[in-house]
Amino acid sequence: MSFDIAVAMPFIGNTLCGALRENCEPDWDAYVGHRFVSELAAGTLPKPEFLAWMIQDYLYLVHYTRAYALLVYKSTTLDAMSSAAAIVHGLLNGEMSLHRQMLAAEGINAAQIVRTSETLETLAYGRYILDRAQAGDELDLVVTLSACLAGYGEIGLRLAADPATKLHANPYRDWIETYSGPAYIGLVKQGLARMEDLSQTHGGRARFPLLLAHFRQAVRLEAAFWNAGRTALATEF
Amino acid sequence: MSFDIAVAMPFIGNTLCGALRENCEPDWDAYVGHRFVSELAAGTLPKPEFLAWMIQDYLYLVHYTRAYALLVYKSTTLDAMSSAAAIVHGLLNGEMSLHRQMLAAEGINAAQIVRTSETLETLAYGRYILDRAQAGDELDLVVTLSACLAGYGEIGLRLAADPATKLHANPYRDWIETYSGPAYIGLVKQGLARMEDLSQTHGGRARFPLLLAHFRQAVRLEAAFWNAGRTALATEF
Amino acid sequence: MSFDIAVAMPFIGNTLCGALRENCEPDWDAYVGHRFVSELAAGTLPKPEFLAWMIQDYLYLVHYTRAYALLVYKSTTLDAMSSAAAIVHGLLNGEMSLHRQMLAAEGINAAQIVRTSETLETLAYGRYILDRAQAGDELDLVVTLSACLAGYGEIGLRLAADPATKLHANPYRDWIETYSGPAYIGLVKQGLARMEDLSQTHGGRARFPLLLAHFRQAVRLEAAFWNAGRTALATEF
Amino acid sequence: MSFDIAVAMPFIGNTLCGALRENCEPDWDAYVGHRFVSELAAGTLPKPEFLAWMIQDYLYLVHYTRAYALLVYKSTTLDAMSSAAAIVHGLLNGEMSLHRQMLAAEGINAAQIVRTSETLETLAYGRYILDRAQAGDELDLVVTLSACLAGYGEIGLRLAADPATKLHANPYRDWIETYSGPAYIGLVKQGLARMEDLSQTHGGRARFPLLLAHFRQAVRLEAAFWNAGRTALATEF
Repeated sequence: MSFDIAVAMPFIGNTLCGALRENCEPDWDAYVGHRFVSELAAGTLPKPEFLAWMIQDYLYLVHYTRAYALLVYKSTTLDAMSSAAAIVHGLLNGEMSLHRQMLAAEGINAAQIVRTSETLETLAYGRYILDRAQAGDELDLVVTLSACLAGYGEIGLRLAADPATKLHANPYRDWIETYSGPAYIGLVKQGLARMEDLSQTHGGRARFPLLLAHFRQAVRLEAAFWNAGRTALATEF
Repeated sequence: MSFDIAVAMPFIGNTLCGALRENCEPDWDAYVGHRFVSELAAGTLPKPEFLAWMIQDYLYLVHYTRAYALLVYKSTTLDAMSSAAAIVHGLLNGEMSLHRQMLAAEGINAAQIVRTSETLETLAYGRYILDRAQAGDELDLVVTLSACLAGYGEIGLRLAADPATKLHANPYRDWIETYSGPAYIGLVKQGLARMEDLSQTHGGRARFPLLLAHFRQAVRLEAAFWNAGRTALATEF
Repeated sequence: MSFDIAVAMPFIGNTLCGALRENCEPDWDAYVGHRFVSELAAGTLPKPEFLAWMIQDYLYLVHYTRAYALLVYKSTTLDAMSSAAAIVHGLLNGEMSLHRQMLAAEGINAAQIVRTSETLETLAYGRYILDRAQAGDELDLVVTLSACLAGYGEIGLRLAADPATKLHANPYRDWIETYSGPAYIGLVKQGLARMEDLSQTHGGRARFPLLLAHFRQAVRLEAAFWNAGRTALATEF
Repeated sequence: MSFDIAVAMPFIGNTLCGALRENCEPDWDAYVGHRFVSELAAGTLPKPEFLAWMIQDYLYLVHYTRAYALLVYKSTTLDAMSSAAAIVHGLLNGEMSLHRQMLAAEGINAAQIVRTSETLETLAYGRYILDRAQAGDELDLVVTLSACLAGYGEIGLRLAADPATKLHANPYRDWIETYSGPAYIGLVKQGLARMEDLSQTHGGRARFPLLLAHFRQAVRLEAAFWNAGRTALATEF
């Protein structure tokens, strides 16, 4: 595929996030080019696996939201606090609410979701970001969460740009269009700009190796997370 | 004064908060009956002291908001997370915004507020609640913050019920009417109901002595905080 | 097997820990009676799997130690702080040092251990306890960690009492004797006594359902963790 | 006084700590040249004030120790964890134990110390460092605590070098000799070397303005803390 990040996401250019992505390419490629993603694009992903994954994604979002709540706590300016609080609000009232609606349309209600056990993938990733969020400063936190933010945007744009992606009669068309659409890409752009500002004030480049280690771990946990649906279906855990 | 808490705030009745309040009465009385409050009621509080206090109150609210952000993180149900996130939103976009408008009307802009040094009272109280918020569980956090929530409601209702309170031509009339008004009292009622639910699930009565120790410390820091304006005017710190 | 917990660990009797254990028996049994444990007892566990597990256990201990450091921070008495600090000291200078020596004797040095990637089991369990340690109070923390403390003692005593356990020429004899020996059982007894004291002051019985939910999750993660060696050998993650 | 920091503490030279100190000189001078320090040097400080201050210092050390426990949790290498754990151990078993002995020799026992209310100075400083310790990363934490570590060393050496300092028949001679002695100065040297290493890996110079803001606040709280004894004697708080 002739996907060019510099063309698709020009705003990532010389940013800290761009440098982190470039410095963990094998892990990054395993994440954005995962089997689950290809099956979404082809429309061949079994529905039960997708739904099981969606439930795990919802359970993960609880902890992702908690991590952004810690960003409110850790922010050193009122502007940064407000921005993080807006993300918390958006996750609780937007993204999580949409997940519930989508699952409800498939006959899975909120009570069933909450009763579902988290898989190891979900536990590992959700708690890993919370540990980084508590142990590090606001830049550590934002860098760790950017693996999710930027990766989903890149995946959306990759699928949208790939002639092999099937949109017609693809049950996952909405998913693909959400993450390649201007609303989500605008959020990614805004998030990376904020991260770049933080990098300037918090010595991002001067502590690159430490940030990279945690970013890479988050990327690897993203890759592992694509299997959460399959794991949920296969195991009792 | 013939103020009767059971009549004025019937919802406090047999709650955990009511029991905490009763068990630290000398400290509670020093808080709700502070000289600063009497001078507000009489309209005799010097304006410079009030404004200096209002600036410190604003600086305190930053940390009060951070504490509620930790409540989002600590909450064990989605409903509790959403409720705490709504408070964070309300503090940032409501209460803090109102403070800024009120101070702006007096010629004090946001940049000046943020440049102001916190007094010892502000530092002590703001960081004390954050320490309890991190070190304890969600009940510890909510109990510690309830000294502020319930106390301001009681003060508002006390002043409104007291024939000695001067409303006509009192420059602090708005303040008194805010904290005795149905909107604020409704928030207190709702907050105490949530705290009572938490007390049921988190063993509030069975750990009463520990909760009381922290509640009392918060009450004493509230009492001390009434002097923050005077301290800010008097010292360089 | 005719193992009787009331005889083997009489000090667990009517404690909070005993009640937690009883109320999650299927999960508890899956933990203490895991295939890995049986293979240790029979001496049939492949050495490479044991060593891979031991490395993961070492990586886990880093986070277990961090959780006890949070207990120092969360403790509300100086005595409790000192007790937690002694455990941190013991883990860093005792248990982790022993792991390093044992692995060194097998030709695996400290640099190799630290370079090893954590498996999903290790990441999930290590970060789960840290999240509980930060989000809850000192009782939440101690309850979550007790799944490990008490479980290993019970496993040791179960193996020591079981006629099917092979000690002669069993390469894992040291392991079995460590966890059934008086030194470790003494630590368990002392730890559970401290937890019982905390339960009294922190309303342990009155918040039993919440504590049980987190204890059960820790027990399930302990069971999963027995597979960490096999997972490490099988996967690139 | 002709005190020259470059001669007295050559190891502070071009370090991050040296730069922080230089960039907040008025606040630093108010701290190391405080009235309390001069009265200690002259032997004129009233004994009751000194003892009241010593009790507050003990109450502060509880939170200083908790902050170092958070450093164990936040450390990203095993070596750094062990170093922080050794400081926790030293504080609990050395410094705090010495305080208890010294106060006991004056007829003040441990129970009395713990019953004493913290003054605003103690609450503000103790909780401020804990907030920085939780909200920032390990470098933020170490920088904030270095105001105490380096300042006491400088004060000790200043007093020892000053011909005006009275050692003969000075009841505070032990205090002066402790902080100017090779054991304590060795700890300062070691602590600053560790902080310099952290500064290299964690971008200390690139985030200097943020670190300076927090260092300065800690310095100002140190200066305020010298009044804790006087405040404790004067107020009911």
